[in-house]
Amino acid sequence: MRKRKIKKHPFSAPLIIAGSFFSLIVLGTILLKLPFATTTPISWVDSLFVATSATTVTGLSVFDPGTTLTLFGELVLLVLIQCGGIGLMTFAVAILILLGKKIGLQNRIYLQESFSQGSIGGVVKLTKLILIFVLTVESIATILLTLHWLPTYELADAFYYSLFHVVSAFNNAGFSLFPDNLMSFTYDPIVNFTLSSLFIIGGIGFVVIVDIYQKKSFRTWQLHTKMMVVGTIFLNIFATIILFILEFYNNSTIGKMNLAEKILTSYFNAVTPRTAGFNMIDYGQMEDSSVLFTMLLMFIGGGSASTASGIKLTTFIVNIFATIAYFRSIEEPYLFGRTIRKEVISRSLAISTVSLSIIFVFAFALTITENIPFLPLIFEVFSAFGTVGLTMGITNQLSDIGEILISIIMFLGRIGPLTLFFILTRPKKVNYRYPYDQVFTG
Amino acid sequence: MRKRKIKKHPFSAPLIIAGSFFSLIVLGTILLKLPFATTTPISWVDSLFVATSATTVTGLSVFDPGTTLTLFGELVLLVLIQCGGIGLMTFAVAILILLGKKIGLQNRIYLQESFSQGSIGGVVKLTKLILIFVLTVESIATILLTLHWLPTYELADAFYYSLFHVVSAFNNAGFSLFPDNLMSFTYDPIVNFTLSSLFIIGGIGFVVIVDIYQKKSFRTWQLHTKMMVVGTIFLNIFATIILFILEFYNNSTIGKMNLAEKILTSYFNAVTPRTAGFNMIDYGQMEDSSVLFTMLLMFIGGGSASTASGIKLTTFIVNIFATIAYFRSIEEPYLFGRTIRKEVISRSLAISTVSLSIIFVFAFALTITENIPFLPLIFEVFSAFGTVGLTMGITNQLSDIGEILISIIMFLGRIGPLTLFFILTRPKKVNYRYPYDQVFTG
Ligand SMILES: [K+]
Ligand SMILES: [K+]
Repeated sequence: MRKRKIKKHPFSAPLIIAGSFFSLIVLGTILLKLPFATTTPISWVDSLFVATSATTVTGLSVFDPGTTLTLFGELVLLVLIQCGGIGLMTFAVAILILLGKKIGLQNRIYLQESFSQGSIGGVVKLTKLILIFVLTVESIATILLTLHWLPTYELADAFYYSLFHVVSAFNNAGFSLFPDNLMSFTYDPIVNFTLSSLFIIGGIGFVVIVDIYQKKSFRTWQLHTKMMVVGTIFLNIFATIILFILEFYNNSTIGKMNLAEKILTSYFNAVTPRTAGFNMIDYGQMEDSSVLFTMLLMFIGGGSASTASGIKLTTFIVNIFATIAYFRSIEEPYLFGRTIRKEVISRSLAISTVSLSIIFVFAFALTITENIPFLPLIFEVFSAFGTVGLTMGITNQLSDIGEILISIIMFLGRIGPLTLFFILTRPKKVNYRYPYDQVFTG
Repeated sequence: MRKRKIKKHPFSAPLIIAGSFFSLIVLGTILLKLPFATTTPISWVDSLFVATSATTVTGLSVFDPGTTLTLFGELVLLVLIQCGGIGLMTFAVAILILLGKKIGLQNRIYLQESFSQGSIGGVVKLTKLILIFVLTVESIATILLTLHWLPTYELADAFYYSLFHVVSAFNNAGFSLFPDNLMSFTYDPIVNFTLSSLFIIGGIGFVVIVDIYQKKSFRTWQLHTKMMVVGTIFLNIFATIILFILEFYNNSTIGKMNLAEKILTSYFNAVTPRTAGFNMIDYGQMEDSSVLFTMLLMFIGGGSASTASGIKLTTFIVNIFATIAYFRSIEEPYLFGRTIRKEVISRSLAISTVSLSIIFVFAFALTITENIPFLPLIFEVFSAFGTVGLTMGITNQLSDIGEILISIIMFLGRIGPLTLFFILTRPKKVNYRYPYDQVFTG
């Protein structure tokens, strides 16, 4: 009886997630290494790196995908991105429901109806629901972008370019078939807004989408949805203004653009680090201040149960409000007339602590193995951990060990926070309590 | 009645601390600006910077104190260091007792007896006790070092050099009268061990000293003392090994030394970042990996209620154990058979979060105002916040705004954690609680 109870507990979920992602990466590595996948031969390490980058929807690459990959190679990349992005989102939503956590009353009814308490049938239903949503959004965007690119390219090319960039954008992958990523589209608001809307929708989280879809008024949204929507709008506007000001006179980025282009590109620079990773400017030419600010955005990332990574916007907001609450001697912070539970605060702080520790340890290791200046190197680590894919141009200078280290960071960055969330949300064990003793800190 | 109750609560302690430190800095700025304080005229900003650096026991300087300051200037520096270092330690111990926190049963009786519940007489008694301790340690060390330096210098010089470096070491200030700080003493184990012992004793915290002094056996020490002693020994050995390995082949630091000198210097490099700030090597020539590791050590810092700064070793240890505990689904972590209270964990995490935020905001501001490479700049910020005083050699390249920003960081780094501690330890107000709502993080 006791044994069965332990078996029923979904204890191995982190293993299932890590295992299936690892398998997908191995499969991708083999497929990309096939002679007809690339125009010039690539090493196993390079293949592993790009397969990991695609599966974890990062977008870092040691070669230019548009010229090095054949059509077959590009399609492998596309499938890895779509499976990696939607796969993890589905896992995440499933775990949220499996754990029986309250995701707002209406939401719970709706999602748990489709999902019926974690049975196989439920998983199929949920996956269906997510797939319908993803394919609908991606189809509309692909048609829109194909029409936009028709004058420039032939129909087949316009469609293929559109499909690739739409899938890459919705999954927050940031891979592009253009050698300079999106740097030649700073003048093109359609490309800018189509792709940024896609990665914002993909990155805000499925639970938020369902909540918004079901309820008309802001007042009835659950706290999580309010935090995500208000937080995203606020942070995007704030970041746009900051990056607009910091780069205004930088002639290597937006300095020579006209005002409209400056604003559009600053908006894109503000939203792409969380965690799409497309770039419209050369990050190697950015001001140090902008680079540092972008690192913060990459660390924050998108929404829970989405195609985005990072510690998540809600984690960041909870940390801020919890810290302010401590100062005001309030035990549990509140927001929009709702109190945030202590275990959410503990979890947020644990996720942030572990994330910073991972970044520190790997940055430390890379300063030993690589002969690359510190700022681009630490930027690469933040980019890999947030599965962002922005780079100051050092990805192809990495040593083999460096590539493997960055691959591990991408893997941890994509799998880590979710499995952490899962582990930290497990029911508490009862434990013997030792007597208290005072510790002075600070 | 209600009003009196509020007045009785030591609510203004943070203001008293900040105010007296600010006054000391202003006084120091004026004294150092006097024509006979320097051999060549210095600007008001430079004077403010060095006065702040001395009062906060940091040790960063925009000029070489040994050549720019006259004897009068040096003595002003010395008084600022001694007052700043011991002053804050006394404040900190007083606050710990005032707040009526359990600092171990025996300790409480002993310290609270001398202190008799926060009366003026008590403060005088406590200050006396600390002064006796400090002057005893400093006198013994000064005699020892004078004897050691007698063959090299005349008696007056040997005594003066000894006194200056002993005071600077005990207060974790890191100021030296030698133009290359302690770089010419890598071969001198007496100087190495005398000064490092001084700053370790000064930096471990008065409460720990009293506890060790009173109780013979490790078993009877309070948890705080055990954490500080075991943590300090472990971290110092660990850091010595790491820095020994990383710099072994670096010919610009320890590469050309013989093995004994290598080990001795690595030991010094391991202990000086927390938070003495003397240097036996040129940090501008260190490996990036060692620099990053040193930044972590500077961030950790020394002990509570000591002459050291940083977030404090106990804060760091509590963070680690709290994070591990979350993963093991244990609500409150335990150590040496004692449980750490939830409010201690919350406080530690709040102190770490605020410290990192301060570092980020000021680093961001400095990347805008300064035209200095990122690594030395962020190193300087960590050094200033931990009031360490190590530099990669950019202090005299700072702009006026940069000097003022770094001065503010030093001030916050020295005053901040203590006032934070005080604010966070205030009795909780009762507040209206909103209904709970779930938030997904990570
Ligand atoms: K990405
Ligand atoms: K110092």
